[in-house]
Formats: sequence, structure tokens, C-alpha cells
Amino acid sequence: MGYIKRREKIYKWMETESLSLVMFQDNEERRDTAIRWLTGHPGDALLFLSSDKKALLVPWDINIAKLYASCDFMTPFMDYALDPVKALESSAERFKIPVNGKIEIPSRTSYPDFLQYVDKLSSYDIICRRDGVKSKVEQLRMIKDNEEIRIYRTLSELTNQIIDLIEQNVRDRQLKTEMDVAAFIEYEARKRDCEGTGFTTLAAGPERSFGIHAFPSYTAAPFAGTGLSILDFGIVLHGYTSDVTMTFAGGKLSKAQEERLDLVEKAFHLALSKVKDGVLCKNIAQSVDTFFKKSRLSMPHGLGHGIGLQPHEPPFLRSRADNEWKLSPGMIFTIEPGLYDPVEGGCRFENDILLTEKGAEVLTHSKIVRL
Amino acid sequence: MGYIKRREKIYKWMETESLSLVMFQDNEERRDTAIRWLTGHPGDALLFLSSDKKALLVPWDINIAKLYASCDFMTPFMDYALDPVKALESSAERFKIPVNGKIEIPSRTSYPDFLQYVDKLSSYDIICRRDGVKSKVEQLRMIKDNEEIRIYRTLSELTNQIIDLIEQNVRDRQLKTEMDVAAFIEYEARKRDCEGTGFTTLAAGPERSFGIHAFPSYTAAPFAGTGLSILDFGIVLHGYTSDVTMTFAGGKLSKAQEERLDLVEKAFHLALSKVKDGVLCKNIAQSVDTFFKKSRLSMPHGLGHGIGLQPHEPPFLRSRADNEWKLSPGMIFTIEPGLYDPVEGGCRFENDILLTEKGAEVLTHSKIVRL
Repeated sequence: MGYIKRREKIYKWMETESLSLVMFQDNEERRDTAIRWLTGHPGDALLFLSSDKKALLVPWDINIAKLYASCDFMTPFMDYALDPVKALESSAERFKIPVNGKIEIPSRTSYPDFLQYVDKLSSYDIICRRDGVKSKVEQLRMIKDNEEIRIYRTLSELTNQIIDLIEQNVRDRQLKTEMDVAAFIEYEARKRDCEGTGFTTLAAGPERSFGIHAFPSYTAAPFAGTGLSILDFGIVLHGYTSDVTMTFAGGKLSKAQEERLDLVEKAFHLALSKVKDGVLCKNIAQSVDTFFKKSRLSMPHGLGHGIGLQPHEPPFLRSRADNEWKLSPGMIFTIEPGLYDPVEGGCRFENDILLTEKGAEVLTHSKIVRL
Repeated sequence: MGYIKRREKIYKWMETESLSLVMFQDNEERRDTAIRWLTGHPGDALLFLSSDKKALLVPWDINIAKLYASCDFMTPFMDYALDPVKALESSAERFKIPVNGKIEIPSRTSYPDFLQYVDKLSSYDIICRRDGVKSKVEQLRMIKDNEEIRIYRTLSELTNQIIDLIEQNVRDRQLKTEMDVAAFIEYEARKRDCEGTGFTTLAAGPERSFGIHAFPSYTAAPFAGTGLSILDFGIVLHGYTSDVTMTFAGGKLSKAQEERLDLVEKAFHLALSKVKDGVLCKNIAQSVDTFFKKSRLSMPHGLGHGIGLQPHEPPFLRSRADNEWKLSPGMIFTIEPGLYDPVEGGCRFENDILLTEKGAEVLTHSKIVRL
């Protein structure tokens, strides 16, 4: 992977921002896959990039880091007693950051923690901002490079194989319960050398499909019986996740259920028809809102979102007026209209879309399966 | 569950702190199970508690909230376009918070977000601090109440059943790969009406057990062959997770491997012997450090941690000098010594401990299995 190339882009940006050091943080409480994107390291860590173009990784698990990470230096986080402030102090010394040098800490740094950094590193100019290095990395990551697009093509092929197997096995009554389907996906993903699932699989039978994200995410209850069942899953290859949702409609459906399935499918194609270079994401989402409104229905969640090393990342296809995301070639994102009702149940239809210079390409072939 | 009783404790504390309103936030980016502890709602939401003893829940999924939540008012988060600042503004109006009234926002609020709250809610006194309501809730949650202890007794019994089944099925060669074991746990947990697993199961065969948390967490690779394999898992009942680690030792072991297994087991019992009301957690952790040091070995992670609605919560059994956690009756926590080596592999032995007035009670019976 082009880790060095990616870091070069950040170093260049740091120069224009006169930054001496930037810091990233990934931990259990809050993930930041920027570290994986910049070094390949897949676990908890801090990462420091210096203005003299060096990368220092401070991993929680040094053995894993040795296997996966591209960086210039490595120090176990335990050497700083897992204290990020201490790690930053030491890193600033190691890189000889000058007095009043600008150091950017993660934008997610809490206000109480921010006060501690400023207190302990008072000889530097500590910066914590929303539009800093996090946004820069997000911007870069939004446009997938050729290697990433290659991964997504393979990943989508594997996802499609599993979609087809699920359909077949549900039809053949080999998969009968929510947990049957969830376990099947885990197996099939790992058989194909995937890292696993990108998020907890959501398998909700007819009794539970009214929740956007059913709780618990799957149980021993029947799946794909009479009524509407939702299956939302993604598998992970080299850290990148797919994200698709199938709806299974079984037995004799009510008129309202038929209508909803039809509307959701139409909403998907309506949205897809609007996917073009330069289009504002909110315009696509708003067109779907308007479409559902004609039937006096509304969707209780966003229309879609970027995917990558995280299951949800920019651009966000939401109708909020302040949503300024715009589509560009290289973006990979979901379109996932859905409708939910405590009586009729829920349905959602979701596929992954790649926008290229030539237009929208639907990578996955998820479906609404009528049993 | 005693949700109202729990909230009463917070209202009482708010009075002593002269707080008009406190806010909690739980979302995908960062979980806060305080909302589940206070209302029973298991998903993304904001929660506002007012000085006139009312609880307003702002859930992402209103259908799920209606099924699970105990609260006085409920407004879908979508009504505020998923904007927490807007939700707080509206909540402050609803509860008629007086000018200059003290409002505490989550301690995790990032510095850039903090600036926005202060800007938009300038007529109130916005507070964001480390030792505020988050610590108060943590303190209360550390001491499990009778209902929680009852849940843990049942949960431990279920966990033990699964431990025994795994041992038996590994010995019988019914579970051959890492993913076999991981899927088996998912099935057995859900069969027993558990919500699922408390964290991603970590099943690392001999080739991968050297990592504290192997990556990927499980694969199609063989499990429990010659050498050391680690299995770390927890199952969830009513939101509460267990957390145990088994080590499987297969084939002829090296002297170094034998020694490590022996040391880890002894370290566990050493730590357990020190579990008493009033003991400083760091003293227990330090005694294990000293014990391993005699054999010129060291443990690259903490000795243990509290468990509950989160897989890791206070108290933390770590040796850091600034660790001030102290054991008290009602605490439930893990003891999990481990040693890891790129050549010999890793071993870890972890059980869940309840401290009662009578002393330590080992709830789970995880084991080091010699095949």
C-alpha cells in the first residue's frame, strides 16, 4: 500500500500550515483508522508525524505493529504508561520541536484533556481544531486511490458471492434463524480470507425488523418467515468494509408492505440516477425525502454514507441543509433507502456505489428477495 | 431494573453541585453505557436529566426506545437533525433552565465542540469536566447492586457452561479452527438468550497467540494444535458482559512454554490472594509485576479491569503509580495475567471476580487446558 505516499501528502500539508508535529490517536473508546491508512497498523496506537518527515508509531501491541506497520520509529505505548500526554512530550523532545512550535493534537481531544496538554506542554503552541489534520485526512481518504479501488472490486465480488449464497440457503431453508445467517456470513467471509465483518451483522426477522438497527442485532429468533426481514452486513478485506442490506419478504404480504418494498426499490434507483460528479449529496437525499413524502412516509435515517476503513465515513448523503458534501470520482458510498413501521415491519435496500469518471458503478448486487 | 432509583441518586448529586441540567451522549463514535444504566435504552441517544427530576431521552431509533427506555419524555434525535447542540438548546428551553443556570455537558466533548456549545448556549454556564457527572456515574456503577449481582451470577453460570462445552469440543476435535470456536460461542450464547458477545471474540492459534489481541481477531487458521492458543471471550446478558480467557496447550511444550503457563497460573492465584476490601488495585498489579520480574519476564498489559455494561470499566488493576482505584464489596472485575513471546507464543488466564463482604468469589471457571 502507498503508506509513504500518503504520509508525504500530510507532510506537504503540514508545511503549508506551519505545523511542527501532528498527533493521531486510535483506541478502544474511540477509533481513528487514519493510523491504519497512514501506516498499515490495525490496532490501538498513537502516531506522530513531524515536519522533518518522520513517522513515530506508539502502538499498544508492539508485536502486531512489527508485523503490520510502515513507519520510521516505533516505541511501545507501555513505555509511557499508556499516557498520551507523556508520549507527546517525549515525541516533541525526540523531534526537537522548537519553543512555540505548532503541535496539532487530535480534534476529538476532550476539553478536559485539552487543558492538560496545554498545561504540560506549555512551551509549544498546542492546536486542537475541527478543520485540521483530521479533515485533511478525511478529504484525502474520501477519494479512493487505485489500490483501494482494486480492493473494493475484489471485496464487492466476495460480498456478492455471499449475497447469492445467503439467498440460496434461505430459500432452501438451510438458514432458519437470525443467528444462522449471522454465523454463515462470519464463516463465508473468513473462508475467503476476509478479516471478518465490518460491523455487527444485523439480522432482524419479521418481529423485529421495524427497528432501524434491531436490538439485539441478532438472536435465536426465526429469520425470513412471513413478513419482512432485514439483513444488513459488511465484510472486510485489508481493512476495507462493504455494507449491504437485503430485505426478505415472505408469505402473503399486506398492501402496505407491498407498497413499501416498491417505494424503497424505486427510491434506490431514483437516488442512483442522480449520482454524478459535482452533485451535492444533500440534493440526492432530499429528492428521496420528497419521493417518500408523496406517499406520506418518511425515512428515519440518512440515505447513505461513504465506506472505507470505517463503516461510516464521508461523504454523508443526508438531507440536512448544512450538508456540504459533494460527489467526486473515486468516492465509494452506500445508497440505502428504508422504511420502518411497528406493525408492517421494516425494509431497507442497500448497495455500494463507486463513482468513476464514467459515472456511477453499482459494485454490489444486494436484493429484495421475495420468498 | 432500578432505573428510577439510579436517576434519583444523580438528581441528589446534581443538587449538591447546583446543576440545572446534565447531558449524556452515546453514539457509534464513542459509546457511553451510562444511558443504558440510567434508562435501559440500549442504543445511540442523548439523555438529559433536569434539576426538577425529569429525564428526557433523545434516541436515534424511537421504536427501540419505546420498547426499552424508562424516562419521562422522549423526542427523536431526528427532530434536531442529529445535532446535539440543537438538542441541548431545546432541552434547556423545555426545562426552563434559568439564565446562568449550570449545565454539564459530557466530559468527552471535544475542545472544538465545547467552543460551539459555549457559543450557542451563551446565556447558560456550560461545564465540561473530568470529575463531573461521568465520574459520579462511574463511581455508582463500580459497586454493583443486588439486581446486577444476580445477573452476574446467572451470566457466569452460562459462561461456565460454554467454557466446559468448548473444552470438550476442542478435545473431541469438533472445533478445529479459530472461526469454529468463535462461531460456537455466538451460537451457544444466543441459544441461552444472551444478547451476544461483549466484545469481538479473540481466538488465536499457536501461530498468532503472541499478540495481546491478535489481529484479525479470528481467522480460518487452526486452533488448539501444537503450541499455545488463546481464547478470550465474553457473553452478554441484559447488557452485562463476562470476560474470560482460556489458554490451550497442545503437543510437546518447550521448557519456556511450560514455565510461562506455570507462572501465569501462579500470578493469577497470587493476585487473587490479595483481593480484599480496601486494597489499592495498583498494589495487586505491582505484586504480579514483581513476581514476573523474578523470572525476567514482564506483562505488556494491565492485570485486570472492572466489567459491567462495558467490557472495560473502573476499577482498573494497573500498576501505574497514579492509579488510585481501591477495591470495595460489590465490585466485579477480571484478573488476567498473561505472557507473550514471538517464538513461544502467548498465554493468558482470566476469570471474573466478585468481591463481597465475605471476600473474593471467583465467578467463572476458565482454565488452562492441556491437550
